[in-house]
Amino acid sequence: MHPIEIQRHSAAHLVAAAVMELYPESLLGIGPVVENGFFYDIEFGTPVSEADLKAIEARAQHLQKQDQKFIREELPIDEAIALFSKMGQGYKVELLQDLKTRGTTKMSADELQDVGGAVDQVSIYRTGDFVDLCRGPHVEHSRQIGPFTLNKLAGAYWRGKEGNPQLQRIYGVCFATPKELADYLFMIEEAKKRDHRKIGRELGLFVFSDLVGPGLPLFTHKGMRLRTAIQNFVRELQEPLGYEEVWTPHLTRMDLYVVSGHAAKFTDDLFRIPSSSTHGTPAAGEVAASKENDESESAEYAVKPMNCPHHTQIYKSETRSYRDLPFRTADFSTLYRNEKPGQLQGLTRVRSLTQDDAHAFIREDQIENEVSLVLGLIKKILDTFALSFRVRLSLRDPLTPEKYLGGEAVWNKAEAVLEGLLKKFALPFEAVRGEAAFYGPKMDFMARDSLGREWQLSTIQLDFNLPERFDLKYVDAEGKEMRPVMIHRALTGSVERFLGIIIEHYAGAFPVWLAPVQVKILPVADRHQDFAVSLGTRLRGRGVRFEVDGSKETVGKKIRNAEKEKVPYMLVVGDKEMDGGALTVRRRGEPEQFTKSFAEFVEGVAAEIKERT
Amino acid sequence: MHPIEIQRHSAAHLVAAAVMELYPESLLGIGPVVENGFFYDIEFGTPVSEADLKAIEARAQHLQKQDQKFIREELPIDEAIALFSKMGQGYKVELLQDLKTRGTTKMSADELQDVGGAVDQVSIYRTGDFVDLCRGPHVEHSRQIGPFTLNKLAGAYWRGKEGNPQLQRIYGVCFATPKELADYLFMIEEAKKRDHRKIGRELGLFVFSDLVGPGLPLFTHKGMRLRTAIQNFVRELQEPLGYEEVWTPHLTRMDLYVVSGHAAKFTDDLFRIPSSSTHGTPAAGEVAASKENDESESAEYAVKPMNCPHHTQIYKSETRSYRDLPFRTADFSTLYRNEKPGQLQGLTRVRSLTQDDAHAFIREDQIENEVSLVLGLIKKILDTFALSFRVRLSLRDPLTPEKYLGGEAVWNKAEAVLEGLLKKFALPFEAVRGEAAFYGPKMDFMARDSLGREWQLSTIQLDFNLPERFDLKYVDAEGKEMRPVMIHRALTGSVERFLGIIIEHYAGAFPVWLAPVQVKILPVADRHQDFAVSLGTRLRGRGVRFEVDGSKETVGKKIRNAEKEKVPYMLVVGDKEMDGGALTVRRRGEPEQFTKSFAEFVEGVAAEIKERT
Repeated sequence: MHPIEIQRHSAAHLVAAAVMELYPESLLGIGPVVENGFFYDIEFGTPVSEADLKAIEARAQHLQKQDQKFIREELPIDEAIALFSKMGQGYKVELLQDLKTRGTTKMSADELQDVGGAVDQVSIYRTGDFVDLCRGPHVEHSRQIGPFTLNKLAGAYWRGKEGNPQLQRIYGVCFATPKELADYLFMIEEAKKRDHRKIGRELGLFVFSDLVGPGLPLFTHKGMRLRTAIQNFVRELQEPLGYEEVWTPHLTRMDLYVVSGHAAKFTDDLFRIPSSSTHGTPAAGEVAASKENDESESAEYAVKPMNCPHHTQIYKSETRSYRDLPFRTADFSTLYRNEKPGQLQGLTRVRSLTQDDAHAFIREDQIENEVSLVLGLIKKILDTFALSFRVRLSLRDPLTPEKYLGGEAVWNKAEAVLEGLLKKFALPFEAVRGEAAFYGPKMDFMARDSLGREWQLSTIQLDFNLPERFDLKYVDAEGKEMRPVMIHRALTGSVERFLGIIIEHYAGAFPVWLAPVQVKILPVADRHQDFAVSLGTRLRGRGVRFEVDGSKETVGKKIRNAEKEKVPYMLVVGDKEMDGGALTVRRRGEPEQFTKSFAEFVEGVAAEIKERT
Repeated sequence: MHPIEIQRHSAAHLVAAAVMELYPESLLGIGPVVENGFFYDIEFGTPVSEADLKAIEARAQHLQKQDQKFIREELPIDEAIALFSKMGQGYKVELLQDLKTRGTTKMSADELQDVGGAVDQVSIYRTGDFVDLCRGPHVEHSRQIGPFTLNKLAGAYWRGKEGNPQLQRIYGVCFATPKELADYLFMIEEAKKRDHRKIGRELGLFVFSDLVGPGLPLFTHKGMRLRTAIQNFVRELQEPLGYEEVWTPHLTRMDLYVVSGHAAKFTDDLFRIPSSSTHGTPAAGEVAASKENDESESAEYAVKPMNCPHHTQIYKSETRSYRDLPFRTADFSTLYRNEKPGQLQGLTRVRSLTQDDAHAFIREDQIENEVSLVLGLIKKILDTFALSFRVRLSLRDPLTPEKYLGGEAVWNKAEAVLEGLLKKFALPFEAVRGEAAFYGPKMDFMARDSLGREWQLSTIQLDFNLPERFDLKYVDAEGKEMRPVMIHRALTGSVERFLGIIIEHYAGAFPVWLAPVQVKILPVADRHQDFAVSLGTRLRGRGVRFEVDGSKETVGKKIRNAEKEKVPYMLVVGDKEMDGGALTVRRRGEPEQFTKSFAEFVEGVAAEIKERT
């Protein structure tokens, strides 16, 4: 256990001790360490509320200051059972009995805490009067525990199993120093304020509908402008490199995924349409003459969870020569994955995801050049969004080369090329042996947002498998049939998840090029409305997204509303402006206004949009 | 019966008579009139082939020239049964027995021919030795029949019912004058040459894959460029009018269509995902706290066949004031309809259709202005594609006002407005009473392509129903809640079907602004390749789509290939051009080449693109 984890787990004991002092009738469940802190599951005589956490926290911190000793004792398991039975701690007794019969208290492999060890000897820890069944280790005395606070109350089934009694879960966070705790709490507060679901509602970017279903956001015109701005940015970068958009349907026969191998691997994630609903007969009494119409099908369909198999069908529709490669396809199709409703979250975990997906079909000798192009794209994009990043390079396990498809020479070369490129681009990376898929090495880009949180975004994946499965070929200079390599890549990942991330990254105050409304025009009175609209039309002519506030509010109120909407520029329009005077301009978040001619203003905004600053 | 239909039906008798002369053992089915001609279903002793049609046609035309009389006789039904039994014409006997017992020979309401009439008396027609059971009328003598020809042989089940014996169906076309027949045959020949499936393959625009399934085309990058050009044209026109694109998912709970009413009406056309496959449980053992995660759903889903219900959910996500209307949403989502495989045809009948769909939520007093905007859009678009059109205006049946939703006053006003606008725009139209849906009047635009064929394209539909069903509201100036009206509109219809139509309309030779490749650069030798690419990059900078022919062919062959690909402009690039000389330009279909400076050339192309000429 890492020292800070020992402190966190010890803090959990103090919390349990405090609870037993304040609510002696409580029954204790388990209290493991989690990221940044710990929790403890407890059955209170009468359920407590968020408000009660303060008193529990105060009591636990008081115990901490008393510098209590953590005393370990070992005792035979039957003695421990007797001890906890006497204390009336039925859950602990249950754990001990489990341990005695099964040698572990874990119900499943991913359970967080295991008090197991030797089966006939167990350890307990005492802190003052408090006793807990625990494998340890712990701090020696409570002053060694860093500052902690209780921050959340939730419900939890005993041992995570529905049907079991429902306990209350007290979450705490604990850090080595007060500064670290304060930074973390600030970040959490800030993250709450920036929650993209909250900002999305406030700025009117997207909505959910019970009739449409969970995980399926609908984007308003403002949300759509964000989607389009991001996708057009990707287009603008990738088109000159030879990426060509294609269009593939959202529905497909399962046959496609049987050949690709996804049918077996992806089963639970697929939205499937059973074959019974897709029968058909020829039309109008005539016996179908053409093959196209002869289809009286009984096929299972699926809503597509990925584009790559479709792209192989386009590649395969013509004979390709070595001169035609790289053959690059890009696709902004929306993909659908049957995520469990409980795992959905705003835009960051959805059922409908629109990747900036692309595939390059290349010769082996083109791997370096192609990956180099993609690295350039990714760097440009993450830099533009002011996201720093590090790369995780997933390589083969060199001890089991037989597990991998594609041949040893190709792998050796491909891995060396990828590592070489990361060095050449001077990107921070970590090479992880044994993490590659059987079909090829890959790079994942971990981006850090303005709150210091990490998100996996871009990805580059080599694939020696799909070309085999779909029997893809090209003809080389000698007329010989060769197997191409595929590269899968996504730049921002999915536009939905990326939007969720950058809404929080920018706290909704998007740079001008992204902002759904770039300029808000605020007429002082009704008589300035037409002039405001005509200004807007001129702005639109220069590709600037505008809105006129035609409400009956005062200018002051209109300015406050535009600030709330986080619009980068405001133009206040009154008699003076209508009479040909300079424009009165306000910048988001700046108290002073300034004046500019229309030409000067629009040039400035257009430049900001073009430069994406 | 129209005179030309009488001639066509009489021609069918001549064909049957000819068949009985040439193949006396044949059994005759039925021989009704169809568009442009007729067919006759016949069971031959040994099936005939397309090649045999020539002889049958010659014999029938010979009979026509003999100026045979068509003689009508009436006789009791039992006598007719005896007559056809004696002739061994079992199908005719079956028809007569049907007539005797059921009073009709029709199996279904849409059957083409009915020899019924009085039940105990039937009519037969004699032409020379040939006798046919027939209600008539016919020409008096065969020289009154216009010129005809036999053009197609197909299979058909007796009376259109699978399981019945399979007959051969001989199709003929017949017109009043030789010129009309020649024009029609030329059009048919031309339509075959222009078949969009053939051109689509030749130009590499789209492909089908057995693994993906019928009716689900995949668009290559060239096909995608066409889709994008059309959609961007629509965007460019509709955006300044206040149409804002939104994004809605391709999947939805059936609940949405239960409320909209489509679940009941559209059942067979929906791709449905049964509820069993979409269960879910909360994550990680924790009891779900938020509503979002509380969803342990068991809901049926569908792939969306239309966007309107989704758009109501965006409208409804905020309170709308009278000042917010019109509220306009546009959507280029692809829709999926479970068409029977037998009815699919290339791009013109598909399962995946991408409409240029939009909805306007308006006040009643805004109907005129809004429809006027849409009429302007449609006219602009159809004019740009050089498609003439007429309008079909579907109105209420004034005798049954109780059948219609929305109230009499609104209907009266709306219908008057629509008719008034068509007159104001001076559009040719036909008002059809009783053809409106119960929820609102509509206009359909019938466009005529370069071969004179009519296609239903654009549509404007008023809707008083969905606002009711979804309980949509706006707040009027007095603070009262009011019901908005919805307008559904599509301009080109679906981009797939529209593409199928315009590929044939232009025979693949698209105007410059549409062409997937606008300029093809043809380097004379390998040493000119880099210069060719650099020219291309300069063209791309001006928004021109180019391709470099990097093959090892001769320039002559490269020119012929570019002509085959129907590229509007070719640039031949050799030493002279590389040394800074003027460009050598060829225009599609023109034998001479001419020279132009790069600046002059690119200005010209850019202007053609911008003007969409």
